[in-house]
Amino acid sequence: MHMEVKKYTIGIDLGGTYTKIALIGQGGRILERREFLTKAFKDKNALINAIAANINQLKKKGVRGIGIGAPGLVDSKNGIVHYLTNIAGWKDVNLKKELEKRTGIKTCVDNDVNLMALAEARYGAGKNAASIFCVTLGTGVGGGIVINGEVYRGNTQSAGEIGHISIDANGPKCNCGRRGCVEAYVGNNYITKRTHVTPDLLTKLAMQGNKRAKNIWKETAEYLGRGLVMVINVFDPAVIVIGGGMAGAGRFLFDPLKEYVRANALSIPAKKVKIVKAKLGNDAGVIGAAELAR
Amino acid sequence: MHMEVKKYTIGIDLGGTYTKIALIGQGGRILERREFLTKAFKDKNALINAIAANINQLKKKGVRGIGIGAPGLVDSKNGIVHYLTNIAGWKDVNLKKELEKRTGIKTCVDNDVNLMALAEARYGAGKNAASIFCVTLGTGVGGGIVINGEVYRGNTQSAGEIGHISIDANGPKCNCGRRGCVEAYVGNNYITKRTHVTPDLLTKLAMQGNKRAKNIWKETAEYLGRGLVMVINVFDPAVIVIGGGMAGAGRFLFDPLKEYVRANALSIPAKKVKIVKAKLGNDAGVIGAAELAR
Repeated sequence: MHMEVKKYTIGIDLGGTYTKIALIGQGGRILERREFLTKAFKDKNALINAIAANINQLKKKGVRGIGIGAPGLVDSKNGIVHYLTNIAGWKDVNLKKELEKRTGIKTCVDNDVNLMALAEARYGAGKNAASIFCVTLGTGVGGGIVINGEVYRGNTQSAGEIGHISIDANGPKCNCGRRGCVEAYVGNNYITKRTHVTPDLLTKLAMQGNKRAKNIWKETAEYLGRGLVMVINVFDPAVIVIGGGMAGAGRFLFDPLKEYVRANALSIPAKKVKIVKAKLGNDAGVIGAAELAR
Repeated sequence: MHMEVKKYTIGIDLGGTYTKIALIGQGGRILERREFLTKAFKDKNALINAIAANINQLKKKGVRGIGIGAPGLVDSKNGIVHYLTNIAGWKDVNLKKELEKRTGIKTCVDNDVNLMALAEARYGAGKNAASIFCVTLGTGVGGGIVINGEVYRGNTQSAGEIGHISIDANGPKCNCGRRGCVEAYVGNNYITKRTHVTPDLLTKLAMQGNKRAKNIWKETAEYLGRGLVMVINVFDPAVIVIGGGMAGAGRFLFDPLKEYVRANALSIPAKKVKIVKAKLGNDAGVIGAAELAR
């Protein structure tokens, strides 16, 4: 009798720009990787069909589960994508059912930042920590929480939403309609709007010794720091992992951020918390998705 | 052969004013209760001896564990009380060891607000909720978190510290040295200082229809609300339980608080979170302590 050993999982990162699909083995190791432009497909159905077709090719190697992360509000318990932030046409889609129907493999769905946090907690910058808070800095500012190696999602799957903590009731207007949200100071586009320079260029200028660019990073670090102080006082995480494009600012962001947090959060948790850069980069999404499926 | 069945636990609430000791059975039921003035004892040792003497009388009924809650910074893992907020002379006391030596019964130690949260989560206002955030409003403003029926303490046992979230960097000075902490607006003494009226009298006046008193409660509710908005956005709890003396303000506090939170927190978690008054009153401390020992 032949007993098929299904040792792999498939992790999928459904992104606003690229959709990434990876076959993943023990310890989060990526064995095979595929990637295509999300917007190359005319609608939601065509995109789901393309994902399923790729899964059906990869699954021949023995796959026991599929995990998929999506950038938006996801009901992880039932596998439903309520909406996606940068991809039109998704409203209350049962992505779990759609993929299971097409592939015959058990599928789990979650928010992309939660899965990035899960990957960093298990194999990345938060490895072996009892509790991590993971922040992504990009167009949006997202957050995810992992406690004892499992994603903590909260009552309505909204836990970790640091981007929309208001740090000033009279601050600038945020996309979400409120005022003074962390995202309205720290989001990519808001920085460019405020300073007339993109974050990437700011980092280059800072590396060349430009004082104004360094000051802008310091200012940005303090805005983010105000949100993180609240996270530290309420959640007291062992590690804060910071990822996303803007984490590339390195010490220009991290040094003033650490200084601000040490000075302003409750002293004991502030002294103990480690603030570190994400380690898994663009792979965090597929690795976390595969972990969800394990 | 006689097999002794140890079906009870002892819960102790070491408070700034009273120390309460209770023999507790199934379902958090209090079978016997003792209470004495904490300050009646000349020092820490005399107090611990008195607690132990009471335990040794109660333990004859068959006690399998002791739990004790204390108002201060507690290392729950090792049973060490680092300091107490309103009781002098306690510095890095291994209370677990001191009580076990005197009673021969396994003892667990925790922060008092954590244990109040645990009691409310298991038998009180947060019963059956997957996640609760518990706030006590008194001289200090404390917070405790329970997830899936277990206390979440954080990396340095500081999780839930809503009292020292700053809601205004330029706000009034707090006892902790920072500015604009929730406690500096909502703590008993701060209210009296700001309004020249005690919270108890404010409630009486509000009940008589006094407009100014009602407005002070509304103002206070909004200060507390600013802290809770952050808790909701980061932690997304199913239930927020509010206890302590000031919860006695009832609808004068709760109605504007709910309104503020619904309008200012992220809409989905704000719509779903239940904000309720604590149910177990002064018994929460001993019941939670007994649960810790179970």
